[in-house]
Amino acid sequence: MNFYFFDNRENKVREEILLNRGNLYGDGFFTTGIVKDGKILHQNRHFERLQNTATKFQFADYNEDLLIQFLLDSLKDIDEACIRITISRQQAGRGYQYNQLSKSDVTVQLSHRPEAPVEPCHLVLSETPVSVNAFLAGSKHLNRLDSVLASRQIKSDNQEVVLFHEDNVIGGSRSNLFVLDNKQWKTPSLEMAGVEGITRQRIIELMQQNGIPVSIEPITLQKIQDVEAAFITNSLLGIWPVSKIADKCLETIHVENLKSDINFVV
Amino acid sequence: MNFYFFDNRENKVREEILLNRGNLYGDGFFTTGIVKDGKILHQNRHFERLQNTATKFQFADYNEDLLIQFLLDSLKDIDEACIRITISRQQAGRGYQYNQLSKSDVTVQLSHRPEAPVEPCHLVLSETPVSVNAFLAGSKHLNRLDSVLASRQIKSDNQEVVLFHEDNVIGGSRSNLFVLDNKQWKTPSLEMAGVEGITRQRIIELMQQNGIPVSIEPITLQKIQDVEAAFITNSLLGIWPVSKIADKCLETIHVENLKSDINFVV
Repeated sequence: MNFYFFDNRENKVREEILLNRGNLYGDGFFTTGIVKDGKILHQNRHFERLQNTATKFQFADYNEDLLIQFLLDSLKDIDEACIRITISRQQAGRGYQYNQLSKSDVTVQLSHRPEAPVEPCHLVLSETPVSVNAFLAGSKHLNRLDSVLASRQIKSDNQEVVLFHEDNVIGGSRSNLFVLDNKQWKTPSLEMAGVEGITRQRIIELMQQNGIPVSIEPITLQKIQDVEAAFITNSLLGIWPVSKIADKCLETIHVENLKSDINFVV
Repeated sequence: MNFYFFDNRENKVREEILLNRGNLYGDGFFTTGIVKDGKILHQNRHFERLQNTATKFQFADYNEDLLIQFLLDSLKDIDEACIRITISRQQAGRGYQYNQLSKSDVTVQLSHRPEAPVEPCHLVLSETPVSVNAFLAGSKHLNRLDSVLASRQIKSDNQEVVLFHEDNVIGGSRSNLFVLDNKQWKTPSLEMAGVEGITRQRIIELMQQNGIPVSIEPITLQKIQDVEAAFITNSLLGIWPVSKIADKCLETIHVENLKSDINFVV
């Protein structure tokens, strides 16, 4: 354990991060994507989601133009990387309440771009529940202990854990889920929990543009163990075919066909 | 907005806090209390709750003895303060998954002890929902966006916001709730949401020791608008009598009597 000790009463040092409400309460939001040749892939979608979340959570000083300029400068020499952008609220006084004039901190972190998985994915059913909050649902906020706890079940590189609210599947611990059920593609509704992923949104639009029906609807635990095909999505992995859900094996050919039908690239 | 840019690929700097999972996912827990003459009031209860949460969340390197020694040294010259102790997991690689050998960071922060409120409390009904997760319920973890959002409704020093799960009251945004219903003291069960407060626990025990019946049970939204008395509790405020719930006024004499019957001191 490392120990840090700060006496905020003195107000001598602005310990930016320790007084940041991201660290204190998870009061913030983030996005994760891929940088290629100095630009974030699908960056307008990332910026749109960040702006919507900033508005919803009343981050009054959030300024998209400043962020874009900062990223232009910071990323100009980056060929390829994984990027995380975190926006969190600075703390003004003690306690949960925030001032609507509170400022925010933007933290940009790069890491190596993960390699695309070679093997298809095995889905494991979560033993811990998803966190449910109709106001927070859909947003990529910093309260992610449910995903942290669920991901304890991941024992190998080709696994992902699927979380549920009561009897309804929400998605993977770090991904959205699509299933082929009765020749119809479906993805769970995210009104009570989960994150509205950018790749999920892209795929829904690509399917609609290509005349492939897709519906957003509740999908039960029983149902996902009885589907014809499935895949999971996120901004780093793109489309990852599923070859196993719990003990049931699935063919991935439907997913490969869909990928080429919609000309999907990460 | 302030901007921080770190390229973790270089691995040159260990930016402890920005690589801390408290900041990334709210992966951690905390406690808040009062320091008097170099010691935390009811410190054994705080340490017990911290230890239980560390075990539950698999903070393998959590070491109570080291924490106690650190606090003894750090607090020895402190007459009086409010203290927050935060334990959060250090990040090893990218992503939600943690290594069971992950280390943790302990952050101790002092601030001025808030003054005891002079006026009784007005309870306002929350417009945003409590976050529900049966595994996380009861723990004082870092995923507190529900309290942050609810506390937006606090407009003056004598207000607190009460959160609900469906039709059941859970507690205040920063407090536990007790109500007197049909001459019986009751406090909401916290199996689905909320924090098991140290003052709540102390009061339940004090009531039991003094032969005053108290029950832990579901309490509905309708019910709390029809009680004879109510108070809220936390480690900083102690017992705070409620004089109004939504539009209904309450007498505080029952709470004052209870306080003296159980010889309550903060």
